[in-house]
Amino acid sequence: MTRDPVSRAVLWKIDETGRRETADWVAVEEPLEIRVNGESLAVIMRTPGNDLELGAGFALTEGIVTTIDAIAGVTQCRDGEGAENNVVDIRLAGETTLDTARFRRNLMTSAACGLCGRASLEALAIQARPVASQTGIRRSVLQELPDRMLRAQASFGRTGALHASGLFDPAGELLVCREDVGRHNAVDKVIGRRSLDGAPFDTTILLVSGRTSFEILQKAAVAGIPIVCAISGPTTLAIETARAFNLTLVNFLRGRGMNIASVPARILDI
Amino acid sequence: MTRDPVSRAVLWKIDETGRRETADWVAVEEPLEIRVNGESLAVIMRTPGNDLELGAGFALTEGIVTTIDAIAGVTQCRDGEGAENNVVDIRLAGETTLDTARFRRNLMTSAACGLCGRASLEALAIQARPVASQTGIRRSVLQELPDRMLRAQASFGRTGALHASGLFDPAGELLVCREDVGRHNAVDKVIGRRSLDGAPFDTTILLVSGRTSFEILQKAAVAGIPIVCAISGPTTLAIETARAFNLTLVNFLRGRGMNIASVPARILDI
Repeated sequence: MTRDPVSRAVLWKIDETGRRETADWVAVEEPLEIRVNGESLAVIMRTPGNDLELGAGFALTEGIVTTIDAIAGVTQCRDGEGAENNVVDIRLAGETTLDTARFRRNLMTSAACGLCGRASLEALAIQARPVASQTGIRRSVLQELPDRMLRAQASFGRTGALHASGLFDPAGELLVCREDVGRHNAVDKVIGRRSLDGAPFDTTILLVSGRTSFEILQKAAVAGIPIVCAISGPTTLAIETARAFNLTLVNFLRGRGMNIASVPARILDI
Repeated sequence: MTRDPVSRAVLWKIDETGRRETADWVAVEEPLEIRVNGESLAVIMRTPGNDLELGAGFALTEGIVTTIDAIAGVTQCRDGEGAENNVVDIRLAGETTLDTARFRRNLMTSAACGLCGRASLEALAIQARPVASQTGIRRSVLQELPDRMLRAQASFGRTGALHASGLFDPAGELLVCREDVGRHNAVDKVIGRRSLDGAPFDTTILLVSGRTSFEILQKAAVAGIPIVCAISGPTTLAIETARAFNLTLVNFLRGRGMNIASVPARILDI
């Protein structure tokens, strides 16, 4: 069964002509549990569709099998309510066995049958609480943040391969900016710096240079950052996470425009 | 100690005026081992610099600790030749203990002291051999691939949050194209599809819509894809991997230009 890799989300679109509520296309992001001979091995975040291919490709390129002939079959499990299509099982050929401990990763404690986006939010709820901060930022200040971060990025222009992450205060002052080949690392560096300084997050705004996937919102929720904005688009699960943890999520922050998918009240003058 | 997040790499720059060998800035990518109370927990790929912040931020946002006060200190180990700065140890405060099995991930079998880019290549050498294929592609055909993939991408334009990966033959025919929120998933889907079809990789060209980090080259090497090209830039470790496994690596494939960092002989007419 092929599932649509995009979905509609209702959000606020802000541009020079004003603001309007609209439904926009968003990339779907959901967890996929990969099992080998029925044993849970890994949970990865992916866009649904072509999951059997993904399972086979993952098994090959991560070294779980060395040739495609070592795979007797890949099947999609539908054994839990709401879990349809979010589990693939790779059956190994013949007597092949696997040192599963070597490959196991990112298993959620609650990842039984029933794995879905909701399970990711429930796992996150163990770590994070909805953000209560009512900190706001003026729209005109928010629009300046991308340029301010770009000026602070020492290396990007030279390489075209680094992500940046910046933490700002409500006046638009850049508190810390870090670059990394990994989007999540750039966020971890920023959160780590601020935490080591013993400084609070409840009046900060996080800006990331790329997209916002679940992982970015997860990190912001754990740190307690009330406003997350990004130059590019969100995923479905990022929007759900922002809404569940009362985070403001701003995407496509470019020029005079932006999309707000969650808690618009913290963006003033819109 | 702060290390430079960028480094120089010698590569071939191709444009309308011809080809020339030049040194270009490249984002540094190296593994970082994260230990907790001296016990190895995870290996992540990152750009060196601000590693203590990264360790602290990772521990917080991945739920290893719930507050910064649970961390007594973060130190950088320098206990192996060539391993300087590629290990951080997070010392937990007081009697705090950790269920390390829950968080352990991506540990390389050989990740003792001495962790560095070379260790990643050695771990990969267990799975992959240098690609012998002498398949070539004409420069003029290569330059058309980005447009061909873009036309095949069903969803990107609608979301701004999906990566694409395409596999082509030397005549520029698109064999398979997949999209995903994860760059590596898009590549796994393409490799999985081709493998399930029982079709070979030794005359194929892989195009990815974003950057090329170690992980992308690793997957191409394991599959045996001789030519990897990308719209954006490479990391240092991607270039080292391409060279070690005899892969052709083409970056910034845009318009009439491109950079070739490894095995240019497979690009004809340059």
